[in-house]
Amino acid sequence: MQRDDLSPGGDHSAVSTTPLPSWSDGPAKAAILDFVQRVTTPGPDFLPRARRIATFDNDGTLWCEQPLQVQFYFGHQRLEALVRKDADLKQQQPYKAYLERDIAAIKQMGKQGLFEVGATAFAGNTEDEFDAEARSFLAGARHPKLGRRFIDLTYEPQVELLEYLRTNGFKTFIVTGGGIDLVRALAEDAYGIPPEQVVGSSVKTRFELRDGVGVLVKQAEIDSFDDREVKAHNIGLHIGRRPIFAFGNSDGDLAMLRYTLTGDGPRLGLLLHHDDAAREFAYDREFHLSPLAEALDHAAEYGITVVSMKNDWRTVFVPDATASAA
Amino acid sequence: MQRDDLSPGGDHSAVSTTPLPSWSDGPAKAAILDFVQRVTTPGPDFLPRARRIATFDNDGTLWCEQPLQVQFYFGHQRLEALVRKDADLKQQQPYKAYLERDIAAIKQMGKQGLFEVGATAFAGNTEDEFDAEARSFLAGARHPKLGRRFIDLTYEPQVELLEYLRTNGFKTFIVTGGGIDLVRALAEDAYGIPPEQVVGSSVKTRFELRDGVGVLVKQAEIDSFDDREVKAHNIGLHIGRRPIFAFGNSDGDLAMLRYTLTGDGPRLGLLLHHDDAAREFAYDREFHLSPLAEALDHAAEYGITVVSMKNDWRTVFVPDATASAA
Ligand SMILES: [Ca+2]
Ligand SMILES: [Ca+2]
Repeated sequence: MQRDDLSPGGDHSAVSTTPLPSWSDGPAKAAILDFVQRVTTPGPDFLPRARRIATFDNDGTLWCEQPLQVQFYFGHQRLEALVRKDADLKQQQPYKAYLERDIAAIKQMGKQGLFEVGATAFAGNTEDEFDAEARSFLAGARHPKLGRRFIDLTYEPQVELLEYLRTNGFKTFIVTGGGIDLVRALAEDAYGIPPEQVVGSSVKTRFELRDGVGVLVKQAEIDSFDDREVKAHNIGLHIGRRPIFAFGNSDGDLAMLRYTLTGDGPRLGLLLHHDDAAREFAYDREFHLSPLAEALDHAAEYGITVVSMKNDWRTVFVPDATASAA
Repeated sequence: MQRDDLSPGGDHSAVSTTPLPSWSDGPAKAAILDFVQRVTTPGPDFLPRARRIATFDNDGTLWCEQPLQVQFYFGHQRLEALVRKDADLKQQQPYKAYLERDIAAIKQMGKQGLFEVGATAFAGNTEDEFDAEARSFLAGARHPKLGRRFIDLTYEPQVELLEYLRTNGFKTFIVTGGGIDLVRALAEDAYGIPPEQVVGSSVKTRFELRDGVGVLVKQAEIDSFDDREVKAHNIGLHIGRRPIFAFGNSDGDLAMLRYTLTGDGPRLGLLLHHDDAAREFAYDREFHLSPLAEALDHAAEYGITVVSMKNDWRTVFVPDATASAA
């Protein structure tokens, strides 16, 4: 029996605890609870489980992306290792900017430029080698200012929201401009999202037999840079259904949000506004690598619900796993 | 609680009916039952559910592909409609060959050539328009020789196998050389596989707002032709894990099979051999559009289990839905 059929009060009535404890009472939380109630309760807005597709951006939506996306620090570690083998690289751009943490020059490359550097740096690795290196990095690497490990800078309200949606029969996906393999290395543990529900930027791979073992070898060539309109394309390619729920934090998510919001029936699109300099960072249109401007300016017109980190979230980050273990 | 933990006899002990009734007792069925038993039972070969990824080819593996893949007939219907609007097309290749059902010329185009004709014919359609046309086609179109509708020419033993794997905690995927959207239009009803678990050949799409509604518009340009080594690439892209189980029927599946079989731990790779002229068709290396030669000749060396349609399947096709409805 499908849980859809169990209760006229909607699936989430089965959950005994109050949902979304890290969300403050306010219009954003109310919009989420109302939406989930409507699509899970028999009535005009009810949707079967197969239609309950939710997509989330990652950088700046599910975890901290300031002062630079985590991907940058991972690429930096990789380039330092390459330079130890080939010192000449140190004087070549874009490696020079990366290695000197020349943030102005890095921002100038743009987010796609950063991804291309990473693609070059990891070319020749197998998927399995990359995965091992990514997990090793994530297990230890710390944020330069906040001190915590990057994986302890995921947002507690969003982890709750993902779980709440799944409890209510949603299938949750990440649709990230970040590299698909790096995000897959953390998504299952951090967000409960399996690899096949992560969509992201990717490189071409080549299938080879190495010592009799079939491996996928990363090429330097970009397969897909998953930003802006490409996010909508990749939702079509990987998911094959229009989401009914989407959550982003920048203009890079606008196509995904509008694709989601302009379908028939009940829809919810949310945008996280980073307005909390005290607990995290405050930024929007001036963040060159991933600005938030059009989506914020036209949120009401496009039907987007803006979430204020400062006002709508009671807590920001998940508990620090290393602190509690100590 | 995970079903994995319930029973030392393995998940499938929960199923009261005898599994795989359309499979004859023999080495192929025994290999499947043994494999599933091992990966679901506590012991050296046990694997958690997250690792139980199974991938299936579609044309010739899950449904009939003779004398031509169903996709050809769908493209043919589309081209006839286009010619009604623009009669000049009728004299141009490749339309001419398609419209005259010149099978020799069509086979010469190859499977990729066929897909490219389809891509051209559907360019400009939105994903939603394509889906509606595909479902309309599938609801009525019949096989030219066998009389049944194409969707009633799916293989009963494979439908049972997919269900059996899912009952045992596997996640089942299609990895097809056919167009991803056409296969998605039937996979949920025919095989119980949702759109996001269908991987296939695809075209580029462009996100547009049409009358205020965000749509994905199909372009003529191929995004991915999902055959041979590209199947392994697309498994990496869409699934992000090495399957432990794969099932194909041609050399187009060899990379997928070898990728699956050369990983660590328990593995099963199967190849359907069409050797049943009485109930379906008998063919292998001479089928120009999708030959089976290397995989058959080296099956033992590569660790592939060959399934004989004639000997291993008690029935071939699912019940005829239109006959039982009449
Ligand atoms: Ca973002
Ligand atoms: Ca095939």
